[in-house]
Amino acid sequence: MRKNLEANLATTKEFLQKKSTKALASFLSQLHPADIAEILEELTEAEKPRVLSLLDSDLAAPVIEELDYDDQSGILRQLGQQQATAILDEMADDNIADLLGEVPPQEAHEILQAMEKDEAQDVQSLLKYDEDTAGGLMTTDYVALSAEITAEAAISTLRQLAPDAETIYYVYVIDANGILVGVLSLRDLIVAPPSTFLRNIMHRQVISVAADMDQEEVARIVSKYDFLALPVVSKEGHLLGIITVDDVIDVIEEEASEDIYRLAATSPEEKDFVLSSWERAKKRLPWLVGLLFGELLAGNVIKNFSGIIEVFTVLAFFIPVMTGEAGNAATQSLAVVVRGLATGEIELEEIWQVVWKEAKVGLLVGAVTGIVLAFVSYLWEGSPVLGLLTGVALVLNIFAAAILGGFFPVVIKRMGIDPAVASGPFITTLTDVISMFIYFSLATFFVSRLTM
Amino acid sequence: MRKNLEANLATTKEFLQKKSTKALASFLSQLHPADIAEILEELTEAEKPRVLSLLDSDLAAPVIEELDYDDQSGILRQLGQQQATAILDEMADDNIADLLGEVPPQEAHEILQAMEKDEAQDVQSLLKYDEDTAGGLMTTDYVALSAEITAEAAISTLRQLAPDAETIYYVYVIDANGILVGVLSLRDLIVAPPSTFLRNIMHRQVISVAADMDQEEVARIVSKYDFLALPVVSKEGHLLGIITVDDVIDVIEEEASEDIYRLAATSPEEKDFVLSSWERAKKRLPWLVGLLFGELLAGNVIKNFSGIIEVFTVLAFFIPVMTGEAGNAATQSLAVVVRGLATGEIELEEIWQVVWKEAKVGLLVGAVTGIVLAFVSYLWEGSPVLGLLTGVALVLNIFAAAILGGFFPVVIKRMGIDPAVASGPFITTLTDVISMFIYFSLATFFVSRLTM
Repeated sequence: MRKNLEANLATTKEFLQKKSTKALASFLSQLHPADIAEILEELTEAEKPRVLSLLDSDLAAPVIEELDYDDQSGILRQLGQQQATAILDEMADDNIADLLGEVPPQEAHEILQAMEKDEAQDVQSLLKYDEDTAGGLMTTDYVALSAEITAEAAISTLRQLAPDAETIYYVYVIDANGILVGVLSLRDLIVAPPSTFLRNIMHRQVISVAADMDQEEVARIVSKYDFLALPVVSKEGHLLGIITVDDVIDVIEEEASEDIYRLAATSPEEKDFVLSSWERAKKRLPWLVGLLFGELLAGNVIKNFSGIIEVFTVLAFFIPVMTGEAGNAATQSLAVVVRGLATGEIELEEIWQVVWKEAKVGLLVGAVTGIVLAFVSYLWEGSPVLGLLTGVALVLNIFAAAILGGFFPVVIKRMGIDPAVASGPFITTLTDVISMFIYFSLATFFVSRLTM
Repeated sequence: MRKNLEANLATTKEFLQKKSTKALASFLSQLHPADIAEILEELTEAEKPRVLSLLDSDLAAPVIEELDYDDQSGILRQLGQQQATAILDEMADDNIADLLGEVPPQEAHEILQAMEKDEAQDVQSLLKYDEDTAGGLMTTDYVALSAEITAEAAISTLRQLAPDAETIYYVYVIDANGILVGVLSLRDLIVAPPSTFLRNIMHRQVISVAADMDQEEVARIVSKYDFLALPVVSKEGHLLGIITVDDVIDVIEEEASEDIYRLAATSPEEKDFVLSSWERAKKRLPWLVGLLFGELLAGNVIKNFSGIIEVFTVLAFFIPVMTGEAGNAATQSLAVVVRGLATGEIELEEIWQVVWKEAKVGLLVGAVTGIVLAFVSYLWEGSPVLGLLTGVALVLNIFAAAILGGFFPVVIKRMGIDPAVASGPFITTLTDVISMFIYFSLATFFVSRLTM
């Protein structure tokens, strides 16, 4: 626990014990909502509503938004109807929609009941979008104005809308039919002469996204253009909502974690660190047991060549070298291609270029590593034939592994599956089978010349 | 190449061929700087300055900022002195500092020479900070005002400063000594009655960071508080600069890529996709050759037990199962802990809790996987003793691997090294050695009872 949090928590607990509610309220009002949320997470279930009821609803709302969904739902239902309604009114509708998507239907229903009617409708309109899409990320709390008003009038409208809008730093211009026709930053508005009409200063080439665009693609666009918000439009061009940069940061972090977990063959889950050991084990077991059968397949390949091992036990010494190095080379290719697909540096259409490039790299690294191994194993066992065999086998293994590591994620993504599920462990198990086959086939071929 | 870019590029090339400079200038002025930069990257060296000279310097500057450093430097030095000066004047000083840090000293000197004197001084003041720290990320193009002016006066000052400031959405309040004493958003300013003094509406609890804070920590703070910008202060509390959210997004993406590449044992490098095959190979080879010797160590363990393999060849069949599953389990633990350290969910002090948790999970998954293997290998080879041996060996292997995967990144991070260098291939090579030792030691222990 960081020192800051420790100190804040101690102060809060002290005030709670002394029942100095006024002092506590004034202490909390000095803190950032994210810091208050951290304190809340450490309090007992009985203390949480006590602390929250000290906050004004415009401070309580962002605090609640920072908690995890179970806590959010629990606290909202513990508070009185009136306070819950006031807080829900201040919460961003995209955050309420996210909450409703995560709690049991009965709880979701209760929360919707506590909301004002038009607010509840806004939230329900968001619930129809998949949470991993632009629609699932957007909020309807944006500012949209007509092109036929002046900069001065626009600023004065912003002044009124500021308390409820998610951001007032971008103003979207729509026509009479709700079609998005322009965008202005507050910066543009402030700089413009007050009597200018928006139509004369707005940017008409608005970059917008469709509601069903994948959140990874949304993040890429916001990151490319350095936007603070991005509008979401319907097929007909109606403005549906906006996505703000803070939600995009969450997406980027979530997608990176997902990729890393999947590459390591464990299910991505935000709250891994609060799970019990058994819950964590349950996420890893399907992979480990599944991959066990893959490794048994590699074992079966060895069994098919058991005759040659009985004669030349030395061949067994190189099994970890063959499987290990093929796995390492495949993992390297895999990581480069998976990350390239995630950041958009590699396009799906470029599959053959990707594979060709990985093949060339694989041949190069395989050749160098193979020569080193040939030399070392010749020195180790004193047999030039063994040196040649292990060297050639390693070149072929690394070559095959690099192609596989490059090929797999692209193929899997084309099939509509997240390329990161072509995880490191999955690919290394596959290369184990292949490398055993290559190594022992080659050994059988060399056997007449083996004089070890 | 995406369709958008293809179309834009075709239009640009057509106008260039027809020498329709006016039409090209008007076409480009409709595009976003990031899109123009993408077009530029596809043009020939001769075409680049031709296109850039058509742009106003306030559009050319953000375009150049999007290019990679070699292109930036090349283009700036190809343009005339006057145009280069005008463009440099419009570029953000943190971006110029980043550029100067990446090009040869002679080129950096030429670029500094082309700049206006006070602008050059600002940039030079930024060069003293490490590029991976808050100081390396910050810009000095912020807006700082006195607490003793009114909201109205502040907005009118913003109006003048807007063209040069990196963001006008946050206003920092400093005292006569330059000490940061408050912060206000443009939203606060717009909503406040025009005659209010800043001291009455500013937030006094400003969250700021030190110039030497690591960029990963900076990203965590911006992400936690949903800031659009974060002030950087000296030890004495002087405002030195601000970090904007777009730079933080770049940091988050860069750090995630770095982690993924390092976990796969290949050097992180932004521009991997433009490297030649040989350059790519050079980044991977040191790892592959180094790990080769690790795998040879595992081979040497097997060699020490060659006597038992000569008698019971069946033992060799299970080598890939033992090494592979230990590697898989270690990779799973590793990924969870490396990512936890990166996102701050795991603290460095919690090393024993982390290892204890991974040990428990390792024992659970090991037990289940071991039971499955014991059963399968009994069915496969018909020997209950072999079933028992392989089952017990796998439990121990997975248990040890999980502890190692959890322990290693924390220890390495404590030593001040990026935990992601405790990469997947590194850890799997280590577990290969350990698992061979455990498996064959256990086999030797069981050998008197083996009746295979």
